Amino acid sequence: MAGAVCLTSGGQDSTTCLFWAKQRFDPILALAFDYGQRHRIELEAAQVVCDLAGIPLTVLPLMILRDLGGSALIGSSDTIQASGGRDGLPNTFVPGRNLLFLTVAAAFAYQREIHDLIIGACETDYSGYPDCREQTMCALETTLHLGMDYAVQIHTPLMHLTKAQTVFLAQDVGAMAALKYSHTCYEGCFPPCGMCPACQLRARGFTEAGVVDPLLQRAAAWRAERV
Amino acid sequence: MAGAVCLTSGGQDSTTCLFWAKQRFDPILALAFDYGQRHRIELEAAQVVCDLAGIPLTVLPLMILRDLGGSALIGSSDTIQASGGRDGLPNTFVPGRNLLFLTVAAAFAYQREIHDLIIGACETDYSGYPDCREQTMCALETTLHLGMDYAVQIHTPLMHLTKAQTVFLAQDVGAMAALKYSHTCYEGCFPPCGMCPACQLRARGFTEAGVVDPLLQRAAAWRAERV
Repeated sequence: MAGAVCLTSGGQDSTTCLFWAKQRFDPILALAFDYGQRHRIELEAAQVVCDLAGIPLTVLPLMILRDLGGSALIGSSDTIQASGGRDGLPNTFVPGRNLLFLTVAAAFAYQREIHDLIIGACETDYSGYPDCREQTMCALETTLHLGMDYAVQIHTPLMHLTKAQTVFLAQDVGAMAALKYSHTCYEGCFPPCGMCPACQLRARGFTEAGVVDPLLQRAAAWRAERV
Repeated sequence: MAGAVCLTSGGQDSTTCLFWAKQRFDPILALAFDYGQRHRIELEAAQVVCDLAGIPLTVLPLMILRDLGGSALIGSSDTIQASGGRDGLPNTFVPGRNLLFLTVAAAFAYQREIHDLIIGACETDYSGYPDCREQTMCALETTLHLGMDYAVQIHTPLMHLTKAQTVFLAQDVGAMAALKYSHTCYEGCFPPCGMCPACQLRARGFTEAGVVDPLLQRAAAWRAERV
């Protein structure tokens, strides 16, 4: 099998992708970015998930995202809102963030003679994220190929899945045990707040799938210990 | 006139582009990247050139280029060679470097509601740089538009010019006085070494144009003072 670079954030989608990738590529190199996330818990979750998957994780600093500003997900005191940015985009939107992540990932892959990149982008998320669209990924693939003179394939196993279907995929590829340690909450807490848009979207997917979220089981156990 | 973001390196080509841009856009924001260049003289040259042009310069840190490795232009003790990289590419090649620069520039422009980007990319350089090709630039324009849901135009005034024609353009747009302070030499010296591929390419352009390079005039004056 050929190798692949899998973008990893410690979240539900990229965790599912890591295990999807394990069935198809070898070796897999996980790549996460340190861009001054307000919540360090994200990078910690990425590390635990990769350890469970037996996949080495490289964390590259990408502080330029902070300098580009305009996003509430990057350390600041702005309140997170589901919407409120320009043209109704959520103010968590960093313009072209996935383009930047994938361009760096492609250069990282080039240096290692790897041609396959995996990202948990999903058009279900497209409410606010044009850099998650399939059309964007296809255009980027062409651009990277031309710009590096090196063929790159971007795999997006979640692109057309509903959140419930992503839960089923996680079961199929054996990602459930690792999802226990994945991180989703915008508030950056464990146990997760359960109220923010990210927590609610995750909960909706598990509810629709009729599956208990292992992260919430872990949270319940954590609470029970402390009563 | 609408505004534009002009990528700036302190070199001959981007200096010429800055003055080309001055005739067409207002305001112009110059953008340079600090990626741990071995020679700090490049960023100093960018600042002097921008001061002479009356254009504000923003320097954004982009240290990830150093982490991506593999380039002799980034601080290291490797000898610079005209060739020697994979597939005969010069080992000064950072895969997709211009893609990264322009993707960041596009996000920077987005935040300021600017739609025009200017870069001194040139197919004459294409011997080793696929990320300088017109085809790459067109594909990237499409990708940025899709990925940010925001139209961006990438202007490449030097794309089809020979090095001699670039010298004539510099005369036409009034860039000659600023070229006196531009920096080209791979060795990072002033006066320039005159021997490295970059110095020789620059010299060939001025010779073919039958024009004296103002940088060499400045170097001659500097030497005369020290005799």
